[in-house]
Amino acid sequence: MGRSIVVAVDGGEESIHALTWCLQNIVVVGTTADEASSDSGGGVTGDTVVLLYARPSPSVYPAMDGSGYLFSSDIIASMDNYAKHLADTVTQKAKMVCSSYPNLKVEIKVQNGDPRDVICEMVEKLGADMLVMGSHGYGPLKRAFIGSVSSYCAQNVKCPVLIVKKPKN
Amino acid sequence: MGRSIVVAVDGGEESIHALTWCLQNIVVVGTTADEASSDSGGGVTGDTVVLLYARPSPSVYPAMDGSGYLFSSDIIASMDNYAKHLADTVTQKAKMVCSSYPNLKVEIKVQNGDPRDVICEMVEKLGADMLVMGSHGYGPLKRAFIGSVSSYCAQNVKCPVLIVKKPKN
Repeated sequence: MGRSIVVAVDGGEESIHALTWCLQNIVVVGTTADEASSDSGGGVTGDTVVLLYARPSPSVYPAMDGSGYLFSSDIIASMDNYAKHLADTVTQKAKMVCSSYPNLKVEIKVQNGDPRDVICEMVEKLGADMLVMGSHGYGPLKRAFIGSVSSYCAQNVKCPVLIVKKPKN
Repeated sequence: MGRSIVVAVDGGEESIHALTWCLQNIVVVGTTADEASSDSGGGVTGDTVVLLYARPSPSVYPAMDGSGYLFSSDIIASMDNYAKHLADTVTQKAKMVCSSYPNLKVEIKVQNGDPRDVICEMVEKLGADMLVMGSHGYGPLKRAFIGSVSSYCAQNVKCPVLIVKKPKN
């Protein structure tokens, strides 16, 4: 065992639900030799959960709004601050969910860029054993836009992909 | 525990790989009270793996070929026999993979119809906890046709969906 499981988090409730479900159903939490019962020998090597957040990089912001007005450096700086603050909030929230499992190995990765590229590249780079992400439960009319990130990743990463939807109630 | 995990099998190597990966990484095999070590009390309730195969129903065959020639009842009967034989082969192959886990609860379901409908309806009917299926590792040029079954199911079932690709080597 001792798998590396990447969970894509984006601050939405669905990604928190996906993380929670995966912790309850998939992740193996390690035990130390002390904790392991005497008959099972040493401890169990648990999985590592990598919480991955893709943060829009400053260069992703359009330099102009619809009317062709160039954003001042103040506005760009405050957008950047907001993005940093958001990244902290998202990752802290996800970390808190993991804190119910004291022995769980958790790593946090925040990477600038488009979520599709960030997720696929990180999964590849880490040689992850599994990618877990939420989907977007859009109805049939919005199918064209449905979970473009999760569909893209499901098609492009090599490892198994688990897509977890948030139940409606 | 004691989850119901539906694994869609279609006779392809990828679905066998998906099943194998899922047995090794996800499925909890039950233990009886006798087998359980003395300190853990009674046995563990294991998961049930439902092997699901969607078999094209006779009505799915086009009644005419491209040249407008009507298939004779003999040909239809032999296509139907072939389909039945295929269903047996596929499910037996999948069952054999499961036989490495003697205590595993395995159910086999063969249902006539389009795989997309069959899979989504069965997952719903059984109230499954998870759907596992292979994807089709087409390259970018074939993206338009990619794993239409797995994409469709990932979008349409309510439970978590695990898509497992077969590594190239």
